[in-house]
Formats: sequence, C-alpha cells, structure tokens
Amino acid sequence: MKSKSSTLRLLYGASDANADMLYLSGVSVPDPFLAIVTDKQTYGVVSQLEYGRVARQSRFDEVMLLEDIRKHAAKTLQLDLRDIGPGELMVYFAQRFAVKKIKVPADFPAVFYAKLYEAGYNLGIIEGAFFPQRARKSDAEARAIRRGNAASAAGIRAAEAVLRAARIDGKRLIYEGRVLTSERLRTIIDQACLARGATAASTIVAGGRQACDPHEVGHGPLRPNELIIVDVFPRMHKTGYHGDMTRTFLKGRASAAQRKLVATVRAAQCAALDAVKAGVKGSTVHAAADKVFSDGGYRTERRGNGFVGFIHSTGHGLGLEVHESPRVSKGAGKLKAGNVVTIEPGLYYPDIGGCRIEDVVRVTKGGSEALSSMHYRWEIR
Amino acid sequence: MKSKSSTLRLLYGASDANADMLYLSGVSVPDPFLAIVTDKQTYGVVSQLEYGRVARQSRFDEVMLLEDIRKHAAKTLQLDLRDIGPGELMVYFAQRFAVKKIKVPADFPAVFYAKLYEAGYNLGIIEGAFFPQRARKSDAEARAIRRGNAASAAGIRAAEAVLRAARIDGKRLIYEGRVLTSERLRTIIDQACLARGATAASTIVAGGRQACDPHEVGHGPLRPNELIIVDVFPRMHKTGYHGDMTRTFLKGRASAAQRKLVATVRAAQCAALDAVKAGVKGSTVHAAADKVFSDGGYRTERRGNGFVGFIHSTGHGLGLEVHESPRVSKGAGKLKAGNVVTIEPGLYYPDIGGCRIEDVVRVTKGGSEALSSMHYRWEIR
Repeated sequence: MKSKSSTLRLLYGASDANADMLYLSGVSVPDPFLAIVTDKQTYGVVSQLEYGRVARQSRFDEVMLLEDIRKHAAKTLQLDLRDIGPGELMVYFAQRFAVKKIKVPADFPAVFYAKLYEAGYNLGIIEGAFFPQRARKSDAEARAIRRGNAASAAGIRAAEAVLRAARIDGKRLIYEGRVLTSERLRTIIDQACLARGATAASTIVAGGRQACDPHEVGHGPLRPNELIIVDVFPRMHKTGYHGDMTRTFLKGRASAAQRKLVATVRAAQCAALDAVKAGVKGSTVHAAADKVFSDGGYRTERRGNGFVGFIHSTGHGLGLEVHESPRVSKGAGKLKAGNVVTIEPGLYYPDIGGCRIEDVVRVTKGGSEALSSMHYRWEIR
Repeated sequence: MKSKSSTLRLLYGASDANADMLYLSGVSVPDPFLAIVTDKQTYGVVSQLEYGRVARQSRFDEVMLLEDIRKHAAKTLQLDLRDIGPGELMVYFAQRFAVKKIKVPADFPAVFYAKLYEAGYNLGIIEGAFFPQRARKSDAEARAIRRGNAASAAGIRAAEAVLRAARIDGKRLIYEGRVLTSERLRTIIDQACLARGATAASTIVAGGRQACDPHEVGHGPLRPNELIIVDVFPRMHKTGYHGDMTRTFLKGRASAAQRKLVATVRAAQCAALDAVKAGVKGSTVHAAADKVFSDGGYRTERRGNGFVGFIHSTGHGLGLEVHESPRVSKGAGKLKAGNVVTIEPGLYYPDIGGCRIEDVVRVTKGGSEALSSMHYRWEIR
C-alpha cells in the first residue's frame, strides 16, 4: 500500500442503507464505514466487530482494521486518538496514497466533504451514478431481480386469494369472520414475501380514494366495488436486490368507468412495454403511455388540493434500490441494454378510483426481456 | 412568507430513510424532498404525487408544491426551469427568507452543501443531533418503542416455541419434518413481528461460531448444544419506532463453560441496568458490564483474524433509528432523563459460543423504566 493513486474515490455509509456501498462491498454491514477506491484496488475500513466477517465475505481487495488505522492516522496527523473520526481517516488516506484529487458521490456526508475541503484537496462531486455499471445489470443481477419479482408475485397472489375468499357484507369485506382491512391484507402479503426470502416494506394496499394518493399505503376497511391497488416491492435477503410489481383488483362488480380505466392503464402499459428498446429514450417510452391516456380522454390536472390523471412517471430503474437509474419519464435519456426498469403507468380519479399496473423488464438490443410475471385478471366476483 | 429568518435549517431526504425527516414531518415519504425550518415555522416542499397526502397528514406548518416552487425559483434566479434542482431551490429559499446563515446536518448531501457554499452562504454543519430533543423520548414515543419491543418479544417467543418443538437428530435439529436452519427460524420470527404490525430486517439467528460475529445474521442448519443468538429489531409500521431485543438460546444440553458464559452475560446486563440513571455517564454503565466480565476472567483480545470477548459497546439509543443517540460505551457522556437505550452486553468465544442479552430502558431521574419484557430461560431440552 505504498503505491500512489491519481485519484481517490471515497464512500461512507452502511451497506445495508447505501446501495453503492453494497454494490462495492457485496456484504451487508449495518453501521457506516469507510470504503476507498484507488486506481488499482478497493479497500474497506471496518471495526473489530465486523472485521472477520467482512474479510471473509466481502469483495474488497483489502479489508483494514479501523482500530489499527485510527492509531496510524493519529500518529501521521499528530492528533490525539480521540480526535480521529472518519473525516480525519479520509485525510490520512489521501496523504498515504499521495493523491490530490478526490471524488465523492452527491450524497456524501457534508461534514466529511467540508473536512477534506479545508484540508486543501481538489474535490469532485459525481452528480450522476457513482458506479455507472450499476445501471447495466448482469445475468446474475437480472436473476436476483427476477427472484425479487417472484416474491412480489407471491405476495400479490396471496392478496388475490384473500379477496377471492372474502365475502361481501354491505359496504365491507369479511375474511375469515372479520372485516378485511388494508392492514390485514398487507400483513398477509408481507408474510408471503418472507416465505420467499424477501422483506417487503411499505407495501401498498389502498382502495377507493386512498389509492388516488400513489404513496398512501392504505388503512382501514377495504370496500367492495372499489379499485384496490396492490404494490409490492420486497428486498431479497440473500442478494439485496428488489422486486417491484403492482396489480389492481376489485372485489364485487366493476362500473363501466372502472372497466374503461383499467383497460386503458393496461393498454398504456403495453404501449410503453412495446416502446422499450436499447437506444430509445426513456421519455419516448413515457410518451407512449401518455398518448394512450390522452387519446382515451384522460386528463391530468389539478383538482382542489390534489392532482388527478397520470400523475407520476412511467417507470424507474430497479436493483439494489427500489428507485434507481435510469428514469422512464419526461426528459429522460436513452435506455441502454442491461438497464432494468419498471413500466407502471397509472390513472387516478377520486370519483372512479386509482389503477396502476406494474411489471419489470431488462432492456435488450431488440426490445426487452420480462423479469416479472403474473396474470392481469382483476375483477373478483 | 415574506418574513425574514435569522437562520435557516435545511434537511433533504426521504422520511422513510432519514429519521430527522420523519421526526420533523411525521409522515412517511419514500422519495427525497426538501424541508425547511425557520425561526418560526417548518415547511415541506413535495411534488404533486405527495402533495395531498402530506398536506393532510404531516406536522409541517406549511406544505409547498414542488412544481410551483420550481417555477418561482426559475424566475427569481433567472434560470431555465430544467436547471432548477434541489440545490437551486435551497438558494431560492435562502434569498426568499433573506438569511445569511444556513445550518445543515452532518449527513447533508455534499452536492447541495457545495452549491450553497458557492452561492456565498455562511454554512454551519451540526455535527451532533440535528434535533437534540429526539434523544429525550416523550411518553407517546416510549409507548411506541414498548410496542416495538412487544413485536420483538413475539418474534423471540416464536423462535423459542420452534426450538422447544424441534427434535434433536444427531448434529441437526428437525422441525416439522425438515432440518431447522437459521433462515427458516428467521422467517418464522419475522412473520410473528408482521402479525404485530412491525417489519423486521436483518434479524439475527446465529448459532455456534457464527454467533461470534455479532453482525452475522446466520445461515444454514442450527445445531444442538450450541448457543443461538436471536436478535430482533423490527420497525412499527404505524409510528416508525423500533424495538430491539436479544435472547440467547440453546437446544439440548449446555456445557459448564456455556452455562458460566450465559450467567456472566446476564450478570453484566443486570450490573449495567442497575447503573443506569439520569446524570450517570454512558461510559460508567459500560464499565459496570465490563467489570463483571473482567472479574469473571473473560478477556477481550485479538485471536487470529478476529476478536474475542466483549467486542462491542453495552448499548445505544433506540427510537426512529435502531442506532441513535446516546451511546452507552467507552467515552460516552451523561445520560439524561427520557433517553431510551438498549443494554446488551455480550461475550464471544468461538470455542464456547456467543451470548448476548438485550433489553431496552428509558432513563429516569431515579434509575430507569423497562420498555421491554421477556423471560431469560435459555436451555431448551
């Protein structure tokens, strides 16, 4: 480690919470730590609590013991050991590798950025992807995402089975003798995901008007004859990759307006899916969905305190994060082969209900490859 | 909103991932957004996707619509609308409130820090708690944490029941006809948490040598006559507060060394619990546990690639984050009434096994109040 490096890329975070850290290290670490990328090698600096496990399981070329490095840093920087925090370690490594230029991600903690700035280093903030290769998924990553979607589908199928078994009692649904609520159905979905080795968080089970707030997770009794959005995006325990699928159901009898709404959303999804191809802009894919909506007479506009219509983008990248690069929205750039994106148009009108249908594809040279799979039947009598 | 403010405190993040944002807003938002704290009021700036829900459910004094604010900012800063990102919005608000001094948290994204710095603002980074009151829990917060621990205990009791029902078959445990693994037991624990309205992540079920890496979650078959650490820290869906409890079990027959180890860890926990009181230093509480270990002849030291003994701190604050202020460790400062901390000493020796026992208390003037509850029986024949 006497070697010099022209630049140093620094990351600081817990790999359980920071996807770049997980991508680089390949190991789950619950507390923040320092990672260093030189021209030649990658290094992780972890405490004795993590050392053995990270040394065995991580992808780092070298794992360094925090307690040792802090002592070296105190000596080199001529500081008291108590004054050596992560920022001082960063300065120490910059000296040790004799670099002048340091690159950090956009979400790098300001406190360490300021420390390095004060120490006189030439600092570059990488505003886009810190590891651009993260957006081009390998076959192994695509498999991991496919498993995530199998967990999503297991959750959605569990919800469907409950709705099928439920009985309509006036304005309520009764399942196994008790009123069926968003909360109960969410628990059943999340348990089905767990049985597939995945943890779901913030699973959406929202009916009626609630579904018209796309990030409302849903609460209270579910009602017959209302559209119910079920959006499940669990994280696989083994790999950290996510699934992300949505289906919209209705228990009872749909109105003509509801049927037209759902059919139009599915048509918009098909149009967007058909537009996906390496070299095509994300904005073009979004426009394909948007056109189906405007052709169908569905307007997006402000009404009172909220918005109605197609009020979100068509999709987003999916991987170690639920939302990651690339975007599939207005202004989005070209899709590349290997990108994994969701395609999830939706329409939201409080007087009709909300509908969103979401699947996941990997972009290929000729089009796309489906990484999620489940039927689209939605009316449950 | 023509009023001036002497300072502006800025936060940027998703309230689902950033505890300060959740504390300030009181509403779950999955994507990053901007929050502003002036001398008098708090503001949230969210997109049309979130606007209605956040306006209804959040604690912000005022919720502003991102799409509108971006237009205002473009006009004021004389920039193209496409060039208005969160950093530009921050500059816009600094102008609008006519502030010169801006305070941001230590983990504020470097990219926006740099933007504000270039714009000439006097920037202060708050290195400690951004909302110091977060460390002093109200009765409502204590109740939420107690519910989190009830979910933890439900998970641990589910694990205990499985171990009790399991049958020893040579070096394996058989449960419901199949080999019992860490993964299976984790699923059962996490499902029990879900049934209590909480999502557990990274639940630890680690036996034998695996348990000697305190952050190893555990994998593969569990074995008889080995110590099995079960550490469960779920997050309540409704409130975002966590539970965090650990028990150590053994299925079969414990050795004399294992019995002494577990008894010493429990004695250390009691000693630490007895030391907790407002005004007492966290380091004093840690020292109380440490003394029981050294008196018992248990040494902490490096062995080969790892470390053995008492290789972590006695505890940490618990709330919206699993690890938060204050610390209960070497060098930690005075505990205050209202602090909620875990007390979780442990010993780890690969030839004997690992043991950790963890409970949660709220610090009071006279001592502490237990926020977790479960028995300490651990040998399961």
